[in-house]
Amino acid sequence: MPRFKLTIEYDGGPFVGWQRQENGRSVQQAIEEAVAAFSGEKIVLKGAGRTDSGVHALGQVAHFDLVGERTADTVRDAINAHLKPEPIVILSAELVADGFDARFSAVRRHYLYRISDRRAPPALDRGRVWWVTQPLDVEAMHAAAQALVGNHDFTTFRSSECQAKSPVKTLDRLDVTREGGEVLIRATARSFLHNQVRSMVGTLKKVGDGKWPVAAAGEALAAKDRARSGPVAPPDGLYLVAVDY
Amino acid sequence: MPRFKLTIEYDGGPFVGWQRQENGRSVQQAIEEAVAAFSGEKIVLKGAGRTDSGVHALGQVAHFDLVGERTADTVRDAINAHLKPEPIVILSAELVADGFDARFSAVRRHYLYRISDRRAPPALDRGRVWWVTQPLDVEAMHAAAQALVGNHDFTTFRSSECQAKSPVKTLDRLDVTREGGEVLIRATARSFLHNQVRSMVGTLKKVGDGKWPVAAAGEALAAKDRARSGPVAPPDGLYLVAVDY
Repeated sequence: MPRFKLTIEYDGGPFVGWQRQENGRSVQQAIEEAVAAFSGEKIVLKGAGRTDSGVHALGQVAHFDLVGERTADTVRDAINAHLKPEPIVILSAELVADGFDARFSAVRRHYLYRISDRRAPPALDRGRVWWVTQPLDVEAMHAAAQALVGNHDFTTFRSSECQAKSPVKTLDRLDVTREGGEVLIRATARSFLHNQVRSMVGTLKKVGDGKWPVAAAGEALAAKDRARSGPVAPPDGLYLVAVDY
Repeated sequence: MPRFKLTIEYDGGPFVGWQRQENGRSVQQAIEEAVAAFSGEKIVLKGAGRTDSGVHALGQVAHFDLVGERTADTVRDAINAHLKPEPIVILSAELVADGFDARFSAVRRHYLYRISDRRAPPALDRGRVWWVTQPLDVEAMHAAAQALVGNHDFTTFRSSECQAKSPVKTLDRLDVTREGGEVLIRATARSFLHNQVRSMVGTLKKVGDGKWPVAAAGEALAAKDRARSGPVAPPDGLYLVAVDY
């Protein structure tokens, strides 16, 4: 049975998140329905990362199996045709080996978080950035972030609903830069805990606006205590950029 | 009577355009109502450029007079507070001399046009770019564009509804580049005819996808014939970036 790997871009704003849920329309459901509409097959789509409601993707990856024989280009174009009214687009479809698993074969996930700290709220980027009203000290945020890079117990930055077996993860990269008037935070790891990126961003923001010292991020990590994290940053600014295999 | 200069960002998608119209809500109307809401004064807002429905602004400029004494920062924040549900934001408000006129004092207007020529349609940038399905030859487009730079009769690239007295304008810059997977067209002039940028972009796109030779843009200009223009590009990709005084 042919297995297809999809690379997907979406605006997370109108959805309850990646995963199917009772309380609204998910990205997974929208794509599963699009596949059913053109193939007549009821498939289950498995994603690399379960993005929350409002979180965007520039390169989410997912896989599914199809009984009928179809080329990858046909699959891509047919899903896109059926998704037309929704802000979800299949960037590419590829035929992959049976053993490929979008979630378990992933070796690295890349996230981007965008913060706008200009005086005026965003008009064109509404829902696409976290707008904060105080100018942020990017150098302090970057310095604070480096204490989180490496192999650690990330209990502090883990949602109470996180289903991961272990809170120990290896964070490969957590860079804070200023580009084009925005503060950009880039995070890379094999995998992340639920809400980990948004919790780390909320903590770094406390450092950036001077409420917490640079050392606070590392101290919060060492405490292994959820209460020591900064507030979870809103989903608006978060993008799943790419998944490596 | 204090005169204020506003610099404005907006998503043109939900509006009938900059200017007040019978058939729907305009950006001008939204801001005029916001001013009335906080000041109790019924003002008329005069913009530097009348953007069409769906055209965006990163730096539209407008002016208005207020009877009551208020600081520029108060004006900015009060308008933004009342505009909250709409994708319009006052980036800055400045007190200016009585003689300042957003439209007639302008010495240069800068527009940007974004084209996405990737295989997949846009998800996150829907309504913000012109999506074309054939890869464009940016070098050919840039070469073709240079024939339009300078002082010319732009009748070919003028809407039949254009109210300008003369079709003769000086185009200072028309650059075509590829950046971040997009084709960007930057146009600068003291002033433009109605639909001029979108007509020039539609013509350059014909060159970019190989349907017309590089010389076609200059020949269309020389013909002074509206029928020789390429189709008017959609408003989605057009941004009024800045106005110089």
